Amino acid sequence: MLNLSPEDRAFLHQARVGHLATASADGTPHVVPVCFVFDGACLYSPIDAKPKRVAAFKLRRVRNLRENPRVSLVVDHYEEEWERLRYVLIAGQGDLLEADAERERVHALLREKYPQYRTMRGFGENFLVRIVPERIVTWQGARVRPD
Amino acid sequence: MLNLSPEDRAFLHQARVGHLATASADGTPHVVPVCFVFDGACLYSPIDAKPKRVAAFKLRRVRNLRENPRVSLVVDHYEEEWERLRYVLIAGQGDLLEADAERERVHALLREKYPQYRTMRGFGENFLVRIVPERIVTWQGARVRPD
Repeated sequence: MLNLSPEDRAFLHQARVGHLATASADGTPHVVPVCFVFDGACLYSPIDAKPKRVAAFKLRRVRNLRENPRVSLVVDHYEEEWERLRYVLIAGQGDLLEADAERERVHALLREKYPQYRTMRGFGENFLVRIVPERIVTWQGARVRPD
Repeated sequence: MLNLSPEDRAFLHQARVGHLATASADGTPHVVPVCFVFDGACLYSPIDAKPKRVAAFKLRRVRNLRENPRVSLVVDHYEEEWERLRYVLIAGQGDLLEADAERERVHALLREKYPQYRTMRGFGENFLVRIVPERIVTWQGARVRPD
Protein backbone atom coordinates (compact mmCIF):
# COMPACT_ATOMS: atom_id res chain seq x y z
CA MET A 1 0.00 0.00 0.00
CA LEU A 2 1.08 3.50 -0.74
CA ASN A 3 1.77 5.85 2.10
CA LEU A 4 -0.82 8.44 1.06
CA SER A 5 -3.45 10.25 3.11
CA PRO A 6 -7.03 10.36 1.80
CA GLU A 7 -6.41 14.06 1.02
CA ASP A 8 -3.32 13.26 -1.04
CA ARG A 9 -5.22 10.53 -2.88
CA ALA A 10 -8.02 12.98 -3.66
CA PHE A 11 -5.42 15.51 -4.81
CA LEU A 12 -3.90 12.97 -7.21
CA HIS A 13 -7.32 11.98 -8.52
CA GLN A 14 -8.46 15.52 -9.28
CA ALA A 15 -5.19 16.90 -10.69
CA ARG A 16 -5.42 17.50 -14.43
CA VAL A 17 -1.74 17.56 -15.23
CA GLY A 18 1.49 16.18 -13.81
CA HIS A 19 5.13 16.51 -14.79
CA LEU A 20 7.01 13.38 -15.68
CA ALA A 21 10.80 13.25 -15.65
CA THR A 22 12.78 10.47 -17.25
CA ALA A 23 16.50 10.22 -17.94
CA SER A 24 18.54 8.64 -20.70
CA ALA A 25 21.08 5.92 -19.96
CA ASP A 26 23.76 8.62 -19.79
CA GLY A 27 21.77 10.60 -17.21
CA THR A 28 20.31 13.42 -19.31
CA PRO A 29 16.99 14.35 -17.68
CA HIS A 30 13.85 15.17 -19.65
CA VAL A 31 10.60 16.55 -18.24
CA VAL A 32 7.22 16.96 -19.93
CA PRO A 33 3.72 17.86 -18.76
CA VAL A 34 1.46 14.81 -18.90
CA CYS A 35 -2.14 13.86 -18.44
CA PHE A 36 -2.44 10.89 -16.13
CA VAL A 37 -4.82 8.77 -14.15
CA PHE A 38 -4.26 7.23 -10.73
CA ASP A 39 -5.97 3.91 -10.02
CA GLY A 40 -5.05 3.83 -6.34
CA ALA A 41 -1.86 1.86 -6.90
CA CYS A 42 -0.17 3.03 -10.11
CA LEU A 43 -0.26 6.10 -12.32
CA TYR A 44 -0.75 5.88 -16.06
CA SER A 45 -0.03 8.42 -18.73
CA PRO A 46 -0.99 8.04 -22.37
CA ILE A 47 1.40 8.87 -25.14
CA ASP A 48 -0.41 10.66 -27.89
CA ALA A 49 1.06 8.71 -30.75
CA LYS A 50 0.08 5.40 -32.22
CA PRO A 51 2.27 2.41 -31.33
CA LYS A 52 2.57 1.42 -34.96
CA ARG A 53 4.02 4.73 -35.93
CA VAL A 54 7.77 4.84 -35.75
CA ALA A 55 7.37 8.29 -34.20
CA ALA A 56 6.14 6.89 -30.89
CA PHE A 57 9.32 4.92 -30.38
CA LYS A 58 11.33 8.03 -31.08
CA LEU A 59 9.67 10.04 -28.34
CA ARG A 60 12.28 11.00 -25.83
CA ARG A 61 10.38 9.69 -22.83
CA VAL A 62 9.81 6.33 -24.55
CA ARG A 63 13.47 6.03 -25.52
CA ASN A 64 14.49 7.01 -22.01
CA LEU A 65 12.16 4.49 -20.35
CA ARG A 66 13.58 1.69 -22.46
CA GLU A 67 17.11 2.63 -21.46
CA ASN A 68 16.40 3.58 -17.85
CA PRO A 69 13.13 2.76 -16.05
CA ARG A 70 13.58 5.26 -13.23
CA VAL A 71 11.05 8.08 -13.24
CA SER A 72 10.04 11.05 -11.12
CA LEU A 73 6.51 12.42 -11.34
CA VAL A 74 5.35 15.52 -9.54
CA VAL A 75 1.76 16.66 -9.21
CA ASP A 76 1.48 20.13 -7.78
CA HIS A 77 -0.74 23.09 -7.25
CA TYR A 78 0.46 26.66 -7.69
CA GLU A 79 -1.18 29.82 -6.55
CA GLU A 80 0.00 33.21 -5.41
CA GLU A 81 -0.76 32.49 -1.78
CA TRP A 82 2.27 30.37 -1.16
CA GLU A 83 0.86 28.91 2.02
CA ARG A 84 -1.40 26.98 -0.37
CA LEU A 85 1.33 25.53 -2.53
CA ARG A 86 1.24 21.79 -2.56
CA TYR A 87 2.84 18.81 -4.22
CA VAL A 88 2.96 15.06 -4.31
CA LEU A 89 6.31 13.80 -5.58
CA ILE A 90 6.56 10.22 -6.73
CA ALA A 91 9.76 8.32 -7.39
CA GLY A 92 9.36 4.96 -9.05
CA GLN A 93 9.76 2.72 -12.04
CA GLY A 94 8.17 3.36 -15.39
CA ASP A 95 7.38 0.97 -18.17
CA LEU A 96 5.26 0.76 -21.30
CA LEU A 97 2.02 -1.06 -20.76
CA GLU A 98 1.84 -3.99 -23.15
CA ALA A 99 -1.04 -6.23 -22.06
CA ASP A 100 -4.19 -5.45 -24.00
CA ALA A 101 -6.70 -6.07 -21.20
CA GLU A 102 -4.81 -3.79 -18.86
CA ARG A 103 -4.54 -1.12 -21.53
CA GLU A 104 -8.27 -1.20 -22.14
CA ARG A 105 -8.97 -0.80 -18.44
CA VAL A 106 -6.67 2.22 -18.21
CA HIS A 107 -7.96 3.81 -21.40
CA ALA A 108 -11.46 3.62 -19.89
CA LEU A 109 -10.22 5.36 -16.72
CA LEU A 110 -8.58 8.04 -18.82
CA ARG A 111 -11.74 8.63 -20.86
CA GLU A 112 -13.67 8.94 -17.63
CA LYS A 113 -11.28 11.54 -16.24
CA TYR A 114 -10.64 13.47 -19.48
CA PRO A 115 -13.67 14.00 -21.74
CA GLN A 116 -11.16 15.15 -24.39
CA TYR A 117 -10.05 11.55 -24.91
CA ARG A 118 -13.58 10.33 -25.59
CA THR A 119 -13.60 11.85 -29.03
CA MET A 120 -9.90 11.62 -29.84
CA ARG A 121 -9.38 9.54 -32.95
CA GLY A 122 -7.26 6.46 -32.36
CA PHE A 123 -6.98 7.10 -28.63
CA GLY A 124 -7.41 3.45 -27.63
CA GLU A 125 -4.39 2.45 -29.74
CA ASN A 126 -2.05 4.71 -27.83
CA PHE A 127 0.91 3.69 -25.79
CA LEU A 128 0.60 4.00 -22.06
CA VAL A 129 3.32 4.66 -19.55
CA ARG A 130 2.77 2.93 -16.22
CA ILE A 131 4.43 4.42 -13.17
CA VAL A 132 4.87 2.12 -10.21
CA PRO A 133 5.52 4.31 -7.15
CA GLU A 134 8.33 3.32 -4.83
CA ARG A 135 8.68 6.43 -2.72
CA ILE A 136 6.26 9.31 -2.22
CA VAL A 137 6.93 12.69 -0.66
CA THR A 138 4.03 15.03 -0.02
CA TRP A 139 4.42 18.65 0.86
CA GLN A 140 2.13 21.55 1.62
CA GLY A 141 2.78 25.27 1.69
CA ALA A 142 5.30 26.86 3.91
CA ARG A 143 7.99 29.37 3.24
CA VAL A 144 10.86 26.96 3.08
CA ARG A 145 10.41 24.00 0.81
CA PRO A 146 11.82 20.61 1.65
CA ASP A 147 13.13 18.62 -1.30
CA MET B 1 21.07 34.10 -28.99
CA LEU B 2 18.24 31.82 -28.09
CA ASN B 3 15.92 30.64 -30.78
CA LEU B 4 12.76 32.05 -29.18
CA SER B 5 9.93 34.05 -30.71
CA PRO B 6 8.79 37.25 -28.94
CA GLU B 7 5.64 35.31 -27.93
CA ASP B 8 7.69 32.53 -26.36
CA ARG B 9 9.83 35.05 -24.53
CA ALA B 10 6.71 36.75 -23.19
CA PHE B 11 5.36 33.35 -22.16
CA LEU B 12 8.56 32.60 -20.21
CA HIS B 13 8.50 36.02 -18.56
CA GLN B 14 4.92 35.78 -17.35
CA ALA B 15 4.90 32.13 -16.26
CA ARG B 16 4.73 31.80 -12.48
CA VAL B 17 6.02 28.26 -12.16
CA GLY B 18 8.20 25.86 -14.10
CA HIS B 19 9.25 22.27 -13.57
CA LEU B 20 12.93 21.52 -13.20
CA ALA B 21 14.32 18.04 -13.73
CA THR B 22 17.79 17.03 -12.65
CA ALA B 23 19.36 13.58 -12.46
CA SER B 24 21.88 11.98 -10.14
CA ALA B 25 25.18 10.63 -11.43
CA ASP B 26 23.55 7.19 -11.68
CA GLY B 27 20.70 8.58 -13.80
CA THR B 28 17.84 8.78 -11.31
CA PRO B 29 15.65 11.70 -12.41
CA HIS B 30 14.07 14.16 -9.99
CA VAL B 31 11.51 16.85 -10.84
CA VAL B 32 10.20 19.71 -8.71
CA PRO B 33 8.04 22.76 -9.34
CA VAL B 34 10.14 25.91 -9.20
CA CYS B 35 9.75 29.65 -9.26
CA PHE B 36 12.14 31.16 -11.77
CA VAL B 37 13.06 34.29 -13.61
CA PHE B 38 14.25 34.63 -17.21
CA ASP B 39 16.68 37.44 -17.98
CA GLY B 40 16.58 36.93 -21.73
CA ALA B 41 19.56 34.60 -21.76
CA CYS B 42 19.46 32.32 -18.72
CA LEU B 43 16.84 31.15 -16.25
CA TYR B 44 17.37 31.34 -12.52
CA SER B 45 15.59 29.55 -9.74
CA PRO B 46 16.07 30.26 -6.05
CA ILE B 47 16.47 27.50 -3.53
CA ASP B 48 14.53 28.31 -0.42
CA ALA B 49 17.21 27.34 2.05
CA LYS B 50 20.12 29.29 3.36
CA PRO B 51 23.53 28.40 1.94
CA LYS B 52 25.04 28.18 5.41
CA ARG B 53 22.57 25.54 6.45
CA VAL B 54 23.73 22.04 5.77
CA ALA B 55 20.18 21.33 4.59
CA ALA B 56 20.67 23.25 1.37
CA PHE B 57 23.52 21.01 0.28
CA LYS B 58 21.38 18.01 0.99
CA LEU B 59 18.58 19.10 -1.30
CA ARG B 60 18.22 16.56 -4.02
CA ARG B 61 18.42 19.03 -6.88
CA VAL B 62 21.59 20.58 -5.42
CA ARG B 63 23.24 17.19 -4.94
CA ASN B 64 22.21 16.21 -8.46
CA LEU B 65 23.55 19.41 -10.04
CA ARG B 66 26.91 18.89 -8.39
CA GLU B 67 27.11 15.36 -9.74
CA ASN B 68 25.52 16.00 -13.12
CA PRO B 69 24.95 19.49 -14.57
CA ARG B 70 22.40 18.45 -17.19
CA VAL B 71 18.92 19.82 -16.60
CA SER B 72 15.55 19.93 -18.29
CA LEU B 73 13.11 22.73 -17.52
CA VAL B 74 9.59 22.88 -18.87
CA VAL B 75 7.28 25.85 -18.63
CA ASP B 76 3.76 25.02 -19.68
CA HIS B 77 0.18 26.12 -19.67
CA TYR B 78 -2.68 23.71 -19.06
CA GLU B 79 -6.33 24.25 -19.69
CA GLU B 80 -9.24 22.07 -20.64
CA GLU B 81 -9.30 23.35 -24.20
CA TRP B 82 -6.38 21.31 -25.40
CA GLU B 83 -5.90 23.43 -28.49
CA ARG B 84 -4.56 26.00 -26.02
CA LEU B 85 -2.00 23.76 -24.36
CA ARG B 86 1.47 25.14 -24.67
CA TYR B 87 4.98 24.54 -23.49
CA VAL B 88 8.55 25.73 -23.76
CA LEU B 89 11.00 22.94 -23.05
CA ILE B 90 14.58 23.85 -22.27
CA ALA B 91 17.52 21.47 -22.19
CA GLY B 92 20.72 22.86 -20.81
CA GLN B 93 23.34 23.00 -18.10
CA GLY B 94 22.63 23.98 -14.54
CA ASP B 95 24.96 25.29 -11.91
CA LEU B 96 24.84 27.06 -8.56
CA LEU B 97 25.38 30.76 -8.84
CA GLU B 98 28.36 31.75 -6.71
CA ALA B 99 29.35 35.31 -7.61
CA ASP B 100 27.79 37.80 -5.23
CA ALA B 101 27.19 40.61 -7.74
CA GLU B 102 25.37 38.24 -10.09
CA ARG B 103 23.33 36.84 -7.25
CA GLU B 104 22.24 40.29 -6.18
CA ARG B 105 21.14 41.13 -9.71
CA VAL B 106 19.07 37.96 -9.96
CA HIS B 107 17.56 38.31 -6.50
CA ALA B 108 16.37 41.78 -7.56
CA LEU B 109 14.76 40.30 -10.68
CA LEU B 110 13.06 37.64 -8.58
CA ARG B 111 11.73 40.20 -6.11
CA GLU B 112 10.37 42.20 -9.03
CA LYS B 113 8.56 39.17 -10.45
CA TYR B 114 7.39 37.61 -7.18
CA PRO B 115 6.18 40.03 -4.49
CA GLN B 116 6.29 37.07 -2.10
CA TYR B 117 10.09 37.24 -2.06
CA ARG B 118 10.13 40.91 -1.05
CA THR B 119 9.14 40.08 2.50
CA MET B 120 10.71 36.64 2.80
CA ARG B 121 13.23 36.61 5.61
CA GLY B 122 16.75 35.76 4.49
CA PHE B 123 15.76 35.61 0.82
CA GLY B 124 18.89 37.37 -0.43
CA GLU B 125 21.11 34.73 1.16
CA ASN B 126 19.55 31.93 -0.81
CA PHE B 127 21.24 29.71 -3.30
CA LEU B 128 20.35 30.21 -6.92
CA VAL B 129 20.33 27.66 -9.69
CA ARG B 130 21.33 29.09 -13.07
CA ILE B 131 20.10 27.27 -16.15
CA VAL B 132 22.01 27.93 -19.34
CA PRO B 133 19.79 26.83 -22.24
CA GLU B 134 21.37 24.77 -24.99
CA ARG B 135 18.31 23.55 -26.84
CA ILE B 136 14.75 24.84 -26.77
CA VAL B 137 11.62 23.18 -28.09
CA THR B 138 8.38 25.13 -28.15
CA TRP B 139 5.03 23.57 -28.74
CA GLN B 140 1.45 24.76 -28.92
CA GLY B 141 -1.81 22.87 -28.74
CA ALA B 142 -2.65 20.14 -31.14
CA ARG B 143 -3.92 16.65 -30.63
CA VAL B 144 -0.62 14.87 -31.05
CA ARG B 145 2.26 16.20 -29.05
CA PRO B 146 5.77 16.12 -30.33
CA ASP B 147 8.44 15.34 -27.76
